[in-house]
Order: sequence, then structure tokens, then C-alpha cells
Amino acid sequence: MTFESMWRDLAPIGRSSASGGYFRQPWAGAELELRAWFREQADARGLTLEEDPFGNLVAWWSPGSRDGRQGDLLDHRGAVLTGSHLDQRGAVLTGSHLDSVLDGGAFDGPLGVVSAFAAVDLLRDRGVTPGRALGIAAFVEEEGSRFGRACLGSRLATGAARWEDARSLADRDGVLLGDVVAGGDPTPWLDRVGCFVELHVEQGRGLVDHESPVGMASGIWPHGRWRYDVRGRADHAGTTRMADRADPMLTFAMTALAANKQARLTDQRATFGRVEVAPNGTNAVPSRVTGWLDARAETEADLESLVTAIEKLAGERADRDGTTLEVTAESVSAAVSFDDALRERIGGGLPVLPTQAGHDAGILQDAGIPTAMLFVRNPTGVSHSPDEHAEAGDCVAGVDALADLLMRALGESP
Amino acid sequence: MTFESMWRDLAPIGRSSASGGYFRQPWAGAELELRAWFREQADARGLTLEEDPFGNLVAWWSPGSRDGRQGDLLDHRGAVLTGSHLDQRGAVLTGSHLDSVLDGGAFDGPLGVVSAFAAVDLLRDRGVTPGRALGIAAFVEEEGSRFGRACLGSRLATGAARWEDARSLADRDGVLLGDVVAGGDPTPWLDRVGCFVELHVEQGRGLVDHESPVGMASGIWPHGRWRYDVRGRADHAGTTRMADRADPMLTFAMTALAANKQARLTDQRATFGRVEVAPNGTNAVPSRVTGWLDARAETEADLESLVTAIEKLAGERADRDGTTLEVTAESVSAAVSFDDALRERIGGGLPVLPTQAGHDAGILQDAGIPTAMLFVRNPTGVSHSPDEHAEAGDCVAGVDALADLLMRALGESP
Repeated sequence: MTFESMWRDLAPIGRSSASGGYFRQPWAGAELELRAWFREQADARGLTLEEDPFGNLVAWWSPGSRDGRQGDLLDHRGAVLTGSHLDQRGAVLTGSHLDSVLDGGAFDGPLGVVSAFAAVDLLRDRGVTPGRALGIAAFVEEEGSRFGRACLGSRLATGAARWEDARSLADRDGVLLGDVVAGGDPTPWLDRVGCFVELHVEQGRGLVDHESPVGMASGIWPHGRWRYDVRGRADHAGTTRMADRADPMLTFAMTALAANKQARLTDQRATFGRVEVAPNGTNAVPSRVTGWLDARAETEADLESLVTAIEKLAGERADRDGTTLEVTAESVSAAVSFDDALRERIGGGLPVLPTQAGHDAGILQDAGIPTAMLFVRNPTGVSHSPDEHAEAGDCVAGVDALADLLMRALGESP
Repeated sequence: MTFESMWRDLAPIGRSSASGGYFRQPWAGAELELRAWFREQADARGLTLEEDPFGNLVAWWSPGSRDGRQGDLLDHRGAVLTGSHLDQRGAVLTGSHLDSVLDGGAFDGPLGVVSAFAAVDLLRDRGVTPGRALGIAAFVEEEGSRFGRACLGSRLATGAARWEDARSLADRDGVLLGDVVAGGDPTPWLDRVGCFVELHVEQGRGLVDHESPVGMASGIWPHGRWRYDVRGRADHAGTTRMADRADPMLTFAMTALAANKQARLTDQRATFGRVEVAPNGTNAVPSRVTGWLDARAETEADLESLVTAIEKLAGERADRDGTTLEVTAESVSAAVSFDDALRERIGGGLPVLPTQAGHDAGILQDAGIPTAMLFVRNPTGVSHSPDEHAEAGDCVAGVDALADLLMRALGESP
């Protein structure tokens, strides 16, 4: 199975014939197909599959094994191991996620998983017999497109999120997380991981500027999601004088414009991409408008200033509109700096650039696992969109680079 | 069955325990229960039920009949009629509608239907034997809350809307109107109607100013619904620089604020109460935002100016945002003047006031049927809201006034 043939197999899964975009929300149709595909790929390569209580998948290539079967487990000096490879520490982990945003692109997530399987094939072609376990992970609900918490799978696995809090998260249809996955205490599979390398399509145009098909991330901007609940008074859209209204749509509208302006002025990011209106009828002034602010900034102080400024402007407008505003932080992620020593040891001098997007890699780095990210060039920088793209040649360069990084991480010379 | 006991019976049907508001969309749970209730009320009074191909209901009290049964049909001089009462012309029609907006009030619609049954009871108590048929109508989909066209039932019955256009209207779940109702050519039941009197809760505070529990409508402001489709480019909310975006949420937000401002400056009405966003994900710049403008003005020229000004401002903002704007008029209703002669003949000197809300009464008046509207006082003016209210005493005054109007319309003295 080449990279190209695996990529072709995934292309139709969860794709909208209308937009060309992908709908791969976790624990539903398309994503379940992708999980089955992941299991097949692991099995075809003799990798041992493990699934944790939250639905995170990992396919293990045992140390000292050419085909991954547990029968010939060796330590890194070639001695036969008597315990299970699953007890080994210092494993190298790669992979990414399979889920997408609503109407997203093909590359965000799956590129890292498919490239990981292709890199394992390349390592085997190169005759590598790993001295330690190599795992390919598919973390669940990375986008937060169903239950509203980005990187939920990696947060639960590392203990950054607790199951007792997460189990009651509801999707848009009111289905609870606890209804779709077993949950419970995290299993210690990440304790065995010595380092993590995530390959991902770049979501900006940094590598276009660097004229390089691949590059490495220095870190992730601090970012978060804040829910803005604006409540007003439902009224008849025809008979109620404009002056007599308490219309939450106006408060929301001004807030969306103010967020954009504040971010533009300071070269940060602020977006209202999701809105829910009640009752959402053409001839009724709404009783409630809820908007979700996605905000990101270069430093934590900048993010704090940005979010405070937006909330202040929204509150002032709410006073004018006679509405009430409640702002709830749904998730806030601190700045992440990836492991400089790891990057210098395995990076092979690739260009280094920051990112504004959250990733499971950031969660693992935060949990104390030395982590690196490898980006593949995105010619337009467009992501979270059906237009997201990477050239086939750049994807293949990504697989080659990932194989090199993994070999260095395993202590081999590429 | 008193007004109060009928009102109590309807109170729980389609009521949300969360908001206290009503969800009575046509051809679904609660509204179907209300239709069954209507049939029971007709049957209990010996009225003959007729349902047209679009689901409009009418319960006929035969001319010359004390109990409404067809067995003792008399003409207005007491002579036995040999043909069916359904062939009579010059019938008096009253009634209103049973459906509600999403999360609406209890009174908008059902008050007119319940009051009509109560008024028939009162006429019988007064010993009236009508010289012509008296019908109680329940028009379907008056609010347009399911298929997006206000007064759809009366428009189809009068021929103001055509079934071949309406049958493919889709609700939010993609169900077509043609899937839920038979449709076809209008039956001629409205040809038999000599005049229509609709009782309705007032949706403003005109009667509060007049210090009167009831009053009559002079006419309806011209009004309509316009769909604003704004298309931009989906993008990652974190990695895409603000300057590189084509964000349709910004165009929508500015349009909602501009619509409010334009209407406020000229004392007209403009509301964006309904919005749909694609893909509606927190971490994606939207690809499309659709908002529905509800606009109303005192004259048709004022409405034209208002709608043109809003569209112009929206188009200018779309140019700045790099988005595209398409505006579609979904329904536009001309100004309605109710029949002055009818109102003077039957109105008994009640206060007269205009309304900004569309009603089936306006559609029937437009179709050439002399029509009058009777309003019941609304202490707050709030409507299309769980807070919509009318005092019990005012509702009873409404039934009394309706009975008086109907007697005069039937040629009797109250």
C-alpha cells in the first residue's frame, strides 16, 4: 500500500457531494469507517492495536521486530524480551487524528495518520528493526466539532481533561459523550511514550515563504473558545417599535464586528464562526443569540488583552440594547513551545515556524512528553475548508521526512 | 364549554416546559392535536366540518338551524331549503389560525378560533337562528414558521399562491409541503363567503393607549421577507490572517445593524431574527451566512426605500469583506385597507387602529372578500414570545364584541 493508494481509499469517506468538503465527526458514520480502516491498516502490517477508554487508537510496532508480531520481541541489543512489548518505555509515537471540522478539508488530521503508516513501510523498506516500540496514534475528537472541546481525546488520555467532567458534554442533538464512548480512568499507554512526532498539513503559508515542502513547528499560540450568551426579549418583528426592543442579534452583530476589528488592529485572531439563535424565526425578535468566539494571540498577555477588550465592547453594547451578556470560557490553551532539544536532534535542519492552530501535539508536550511537529506545505494556506490542499509531491516529501525523523528518534541513522 | 374551559384545554398543547412558549408548527405533533380538538368542537356543536386540499378547516353553522344539523335547513324567512347549505352564498366567516411561531405565545391565532366557538355559543344563548351560514375557519401555516411563507393556507385557498409553486417548499429538515398535504386546485368554499371577521390579540399597545379592551383594525402595513445569502471562503479560524479572510459573518453582522438603524431612523420595522451559518463550526471562518430580513413600513414607497437602503449598505460591506451577496424576496405583501363600509356597519363605534402584522384577514380582503379585524388588548404589546398575554376579562370582552359583530354581519341586532 503506497501513500497514494491509501489516500485514494480515504478520499470518498465522509465527503459531501455538494461542497466537496468532509463531515467526519467522531463516533458517527464517516469517522467510524475511518476507524475501521485504521484497524485494517494496523492488521495488514502486523501491528498490535490498542484502544483506550476514550476511543484513542494506537497501532504498535514491537521493538526488535521486522513484521511487528509479538513472537519475535527483542530488546535494542537483539536479546529476546520475555515481557510484552506493551511494557516497554521510551516508545516513539507518531500519528495525528481522523476527525474533521464540519465541511472541512481532506488533509487536516488524516495526512498525519496515512503518512505514519507510509513511513513505517518506508522504514521496513530501509531494513530498520526498531530498538524500541513505534506507535501510530489516531486521537479522537481533535477538532471539537461534535462535543465542543478541541483535542478532547488527547486531553482525556493525558489527564488534562477529566472523564467525570467530560462525560456530560452534549453534542448539538443532545447526545452525551458518555453515551457514545465507555470512558473511565485513563490507561497508562502514554506513559510508555518517550517522544511524539505529529505530521500535519500547514494551515498557513509559512512554508510557501520558506520555499520548502516541509518544516517544523516551534510552538503553538495560546488560544481558546468563549461562549457568548446574549439574552433579550422575544417580540413580534412587525408590531414592536424598534425603540421598544431588547434584540440580542444586535449585541451579537456588534460583538462579531468588534472582535474582528480588535484582532485586525493587533495582528491577532478573533472569529465568530458559530451562532445559534432562539427561536430563529423570521418574524420574531430573538430571545437569545449564542455565538462562539475563537481567539488566538502570540502571547498569553496578548490573548488576555484581546479577549478582555472584546468582552468589554460586547458588554457596553448589551447595555445599550437592553440585553444581558454572559461569557463562558469553554477551553483555553496556554502557549506551547515544542521540545527544542528533540527538534535539534531529529529535525535535520528543516525550517522552523510557529503555528496558531491547536494540535494534540500541544497537549502531549504540555503533559511532559517531548514533542515535535512536522508540517507539509499548503500552497494557499487555506484549511478547515473544502479548498484545503497539499501537492502530492509535497505529501511524499512529508513521508520521507517523517521516516527520517522517526529513524533519528529511534536512534538510527537515516 | 365556556371560553375559559376551552382555553384551559388548549394550554398544555405544544407548550415548552423550559420556556413556557409554544411550538405549534403545522402538520406536526401539537398542531395535529389542535386540529383534532377543532373537529371535536365542531362536532359537539353540530357544525359541519369541511377541510380544503391545503388543510384549511371550516366548521359551518347552517342557515336557519338552531343546532347546526343539516336536517332542518331553513332560509332566512324560515322556509325549508332543499339544496345543501353548502351552496349558500353570502356566508359570514370568522376564525383565525392554530399554528404558532417557534417559541411563540398562546394567544396569536388560537384566541380567534376559541373566541369564534364561544361567540357561536353566545349567539345560541341569545336565541339567534342565522339567516345565512356562519363558518368558523382555522387557516393553516399562518406564521410561515415551517415552510417560510406567511398566510400560506389563506393564500392557497384564495389563489394568491399557486399549489404548483408551493408544493416544493421545503421545511428545515428538507420535508416538502407536497409530502405533508394533498394539495391541488382550490375548492370554492371561499366563494360562499360574504364577509370575514377575524378576532386577534393585538400585537402592539394601541388599545392600551385607547384604554379599550377591544378595537378594530384599519389596515395592515405593507411588509415582506427577504433572504440574504452571503458567501465567503471557509478558512481556519486560527491560522488565517484577518486581512486574508472573506468572512460572510462580518457582512451579515453589519447588515443586521444597518437594518436596525435604517428602520429606527424612519420609525419603520426591520429585523434579522433568523440566521443559518455554514459550516457553523467554532474554529472555521464560515463559507456562508444566510439571514432573513423581515421589513415593514407605513406605505409601500417607504418599504421600498427601506429595503433598498439596507440592500445597498449590505452590498457595500460585502465588497469590503470580499464576500458576495444575493438577496431574494421570499414574500412581499402590499398594504391592506380593511373594508370601511363593513367596519362602519358592524363595528359599533369601537376604536380603530392600524397594525404592522400580516394576517389571513389581509389575504381575504385582497381577494375581494369584505373583511374586518377585531383586536383584543395586549397589556405589554409583546407577541411572538412566551410573554404574549391578554387578561381573561379582555378575552371575554372580545367574545362579546365578536358575537355583536357577527350578529350585525348576519343582519341581526345584538
